[in-house]
Amino acid sequence: VNAPTGDPRLERGRTVLDAILPGHGDRMVENLAAVAPDFAHHVVAFAFGDICGRPGLDLRTRELATIAALTALGTAPAQLEVHIQGALNVGATRAEVIEVVTQMAVYAGFPAALNGLAAAGRVFEAKT
Amino acid sequence: VNAPTGDPRLERGRTVLDAILPGHGDRMVENLAAVAPDFAHHVVAFAFGDICGRPGLDLRTRELATIAALTALGTAPAQLEVHIQGALNVGATRAEVIEVVTQMAVYAGFPAALNGLAAAGRVFEAKT
Amino acid sequence: VNAPTGDPRLERGRTVLDAILPGHGDRMVENLAAVAPDFAHHVVAFAFGDICGRPGLDLRTRELATIAALTALGTAPAQLEVHIQGALNVGATRAEVIEVVTQMAVYAGFPAALNGLAAAGRVFEAKT
Amino acid sequence: VNAPTGDPRLERGRTVLDAILPGHGDRMVENLAAVAPDFAHHVVAFAFGDICGRPGLDLRTRELATIAALTALGTAPAQLEVHIQGALNVGATRAEVIEVVTQMAVYAGFPAALNGLAAAGRVFEAKT
Amino acid sequence: VNAPTGDPRLERGRTVLDAILPGHGDRMVENLAAVAPDFAHHVVAFAFGDICGRPGLDLRTRELATIAALTALGTAPAQLEVHIQGALNVGATRAEVIEVVTQMAVYAGFPAALNGLAAAGRVFEAKT
Amino acid sequence: VNAPTGDPRLERGRTVLDAILPGHGDRMVENLAAVAPDFAHHVVAFAFGDICGRPGLDLRTRELATIAALTALGTAPAQLEVHIQGALNVGATRAEVIEVVTQMAVYAGFPAALNGLAAAGRVFEAKT
Repeated sequence: VNAPTGDPRLERGRTVLDAILPGHGDRMVENLAAVAPDFAHHVVAFAFGDICGRPGLDLRTRELATIAALTALGTAPAQLEVHIQGALNVGATRAEVIEVVTQMAVYAGFPAALNGLAAAGRVFEAKT
Repeated sequence: VNAPTGDPRLERGRTVLDAILPGHGDRMVENLAAVAPDFAHHVVAFAFGDICGRPGLDLRTRELATIAALTALGTAPAQLEVHIQGALNVGATRAEVIEVVTQMAVYAGFPAALNGLAAAGRVFEAKT
Repeated sequence: VNAPTGDPRLERGRTVLDAILPGHGDRMVENLAAVAPDFAHHVVAFAFGDICGRPGLDLRTRELATIAALTALGTAPAQLEVHIQGALNVGATRAEVIEVVTQMAVYAGFPAALNGLAAAGRVFEAKT
Repeated sequence: VNAPTGDPRLERGRTVLDAILPGHGDRMVENLAAVAPDFAHHVVAFAFGDICGRPGLDLRTRELATIAALTALGTAPAQLEVHIQGALNVGATRAEVIEVVTQMAVYAGFPAALNGLAAAGRVFEAKT
Repeated sequence: VNAPTGDPRLERGRTVLDAILPGHGDRMVENLAAVAPDFAHHVVAFAFGDICGRPGLDLRTRELATIAALTALGTAPAQLEVHIQGALNVGATRAEVIEVVTQMAVYAGFPAALNGLAAAGRVFEAKT
Repeated sequence: VNAPTGDPRLERGRTVLDAILPGHGDRMVENLAAVAPDFAHHVVAFAFGDICGRPGLDLRTRELATIAALTALGTAPAQLEVHIQGALNVGATRAEVIEVVTQMAVYAGFPAALNGLAAAGRVFEAKT
């Protein structure tokens, strides 16, 4: 999913992904290489290119919405950490991340919020 | 959950709830009166007063985060409709609501997003 | 799933099911007759006979635990109503049912609890 | 999402969708027209073209896997009905559909399986 | 969340929390100090004070209901362990905990029950 | 759950379990011995004997359906690994497993699919 490809979906996706998570694209390609090399294409072209790259909403709000969803679902803690980092990278503050995660106590329960706060704590600590 | 109470949590919650969903507070009190009259207090004082009324994040972003979570969970379609209406009431556009719901196709799957889009359609149609 | 069968699992299950939900066994057999007639056997023999019929916990606590789980999951509102009725049938009070459902606001969020309270309201009203 | 488009993703998706669910594509485009017209494109191009149209697995097994997932999740009963119909359209038997749904009693619990069996009953009855 | 505060919600919550999980309150305050110090207040005042401290149901039944919900949801294994310990602390027996977790095989599937039994095993072993 | 028992449910379950997961039955009995020794009986007699041992669907399709469900639910990663191994043991190819897991991106979201692909990667690597 590198360099000049001529595929506008892939190029847009790569631009969005690099804005949210610099370096993450290469790591994902590497992780998926052994089992499902095609899947990295869909993450970049569809998830980041077709959807998150749509012009109607800024990346900061998009990442906060993703944090809300992943905290509420509670089934993807590693991806939650990645998107907490991503939210910070596109302009959200730590305080805003904490507000969104805290709010999930109302919509998905206290255990979901506590696990989300722990994820935020790990990300903040790694960054310091 | 009416009028001057002297309880600052309840007053703040009532203010937030009235901003997001005018008239909803009374309807909820009525709905809960027969089975769990105390619960309306907690919705107003805790959910809207203690949490959604926190100053660190604007109500528009809070409502978009709630829409993201309820679309992803897929277990509370009635509340999702209420918060889609709420998001519009505090300044989100229809286009922004659609972006957040669409984005959930990536994080919670296409059926979740399609059900969220149907909920948005019902709200938009009722408002027209 | 009727009468003398000689199968002790089925007999124990039928006894438990009749205690919790008199008449429900026959209705379920009828509902399943067209698509999966064998499944009614497993509901009675396994769910009610092997598991809910175990001696280590009284049926009232078992039904309250089931109400907690179904309220938290939020994906089986019809079965939640059935087990709210079942809990009342084996000695739980309406107030205890409401306590368990309310408590789920903490562990699964307010929308889950509100949907559970609505289910309880429908059951209580039908009974009155 | 009609006719000659020149977009191979869309064409492959349309072919797959028409095999699984003849007529469904047009209905979906219509349903989405008012709120999210672009989304129909992604359902066809990504969900059916990029993913379900991959050559490594036959459509019958794909539809049975989808039935398993939607029965287990329990949050998209309308889509479950659509895919039960889809499985029958691409060669699964009613008995095989019932086996997959029944099996979910083990992996997602009896209420999930019972709701899946009810969905199957509705589809079978409509077809008769 | 220490000592004399004059806030009756906090005092009731602290009493309930200390009955269920002696020492846990201080650990939680410490864990949350870096990211969301206010959240510990809501856990004590709302979750344990307003809800679990309600008089209508004994703490033993409350903790068994929480174990049912967390086993069924399967998204908060650390909190499940905490509440298994909590149930034992307020009078539930190990056998009763195992009955509730086992029962979740019926309502949420075998993997959920097996993960709950593993959590119980870790708690029982740590206590021995 | 060993040897000649005379219980046909247990014998059929043991045969199915040994086909899917040779050696797993003994390990499970051992794991459950300390907390819930009876539960191993139900896993073998009900899950594998009564349900997965039904004649209407081959074990390869059954295991692929289980992989779909566990990937979509996302709450039982250890059991997902076990059933990925099980699918390979009863005739599914690595490529087919990857197709089913990849397809869950559509029905349960990209994080669920990515976690499923990681589980597949761990199983494939351990086998090599």
